[in-house]
Amino acid sequence: AVFHKVLFFPDQKIPCQRYLLSPQGCARKNCSYSHDWSSSFAQLMKHVITAKRSIYLCMFSVTCNELAMAVLQKFRQGAVVRVITDTEYMNLNGSRIADFMNQGIEVRHDRSSYLMHHKFLIIDEKVVVTGSFNWTHAAVIGNNENVLVTNHPDVLDPYLAEYKKLWKMFKVN
Amino acid sequence: AVFHKVLFFPDQKIPCQRYLLSPQGCARKNCSYSHDWSSSFAQLMKHVITAKRSIYLCMFSVTCNELAMAVLQKFRQGAVVRVITDTEYMNLNGSRIADFMNQGIEVRHDRSSYLMHHKFLIIDEKVVVTGSFNWTHAAVIGNNENVLVTNHPDVLDPYLAEYKKLWKMFKVN
Ligand SMILES: [Zn+2]
Ligand SMILES: [Zn+2]
Repeated sequence: AVFHKVLFFPDQKIPCQRYLLSPQGCARKNCSYSHDWSSSFAQLMKHVITAKRSIYLCMFSVTCNELAMAVLQKFRQGAVVRVITDTEYMNLNGSRIADFMNQGIEVRHDRSSYLMHHKFLIIDEKVVVTGSFNWTHAAVIGNNENVLVTNHPDVLDPYLAEYKKLWKMFKVN
Repeated sequence: AVFHKVLFFPDQKIPCQRYLLSPQGCARKNCSYSHDWSSSFAQLMKHVITAKRSIYLCMFSVTCNELAMAVLQKFRQGAVVRVITDTEYMNLNGSRIADFMNQGIEVRHDRSSYLMHHKFLIIDEKVVVTGSFNWTHAAVIGNNENVLVTNHPDVLDPYLAEYKKLWKMFKVN
């Protein structure tokens, strides 16, 4: 079924990475992180971890550990993962892009002093997630941010085409 | 009819403000700016200038002269214009927010060191425009950016509700 979902940030609390990502969940008695699956972050994460075949990420800034771990987990489980990012931002302190490359994920960047300013991803070539939200903790618990998640073909198709265009354009020969 | 439109940037050339905004158009013989209505920028501008009753802007950075002029034109023609923006960015060099306030447009801001990072607007409470695109010239002709324009109620309604929520929240008593 066709759906649109809109998420707004900030959330009240940082999400618990164990709760969201480990098979055993979180066993801490008084965990200070959020175990709330109704939070915007948990809903965003849910979409990422439902990926079965592919994650195409096109993201200006990636420092959020939980989201980076989710992508790495999917990659290790066999999903095709492609990352397009910004040349300057990928080299800043705290960026997780180096982890992606170290683990074998192919990363391409704009090689431009302008910004690769997109903040979208495509899951299984079926769902697009887009908005103002960079993958940072400030975006989760500080900033005012929005994320739209949809599988509507009038939205999905152009984002998928743009992803493929940029992926080719940023290839280093 | 329900529609979705997706625009990608950068465009090739800076748009011609006279061509887009003045009733007489642009009479320059060899105008070096873009007169191309099919450009992403012109399509974005088209939506702004179709506003009849209201423009609710929720924008992190506003330095683009053409878009600011379009909003001011609509305001002078009697549209309700409300602006929500970021406290630090509104005071940076080049920001057009001061012009908005000087002309009588009500501006509210987050009064927070976190970012009011949204980049959306709502036209006539009927169409939402959202994405990665700040209102800057770099976004038009330099950066990789995306903008989604839609009147689908599953998208419009939550953005409109969030706008109204933030408008109240950022009111100074
Ligand atoms: Zn926990
Ligand atoms: Zn001209």
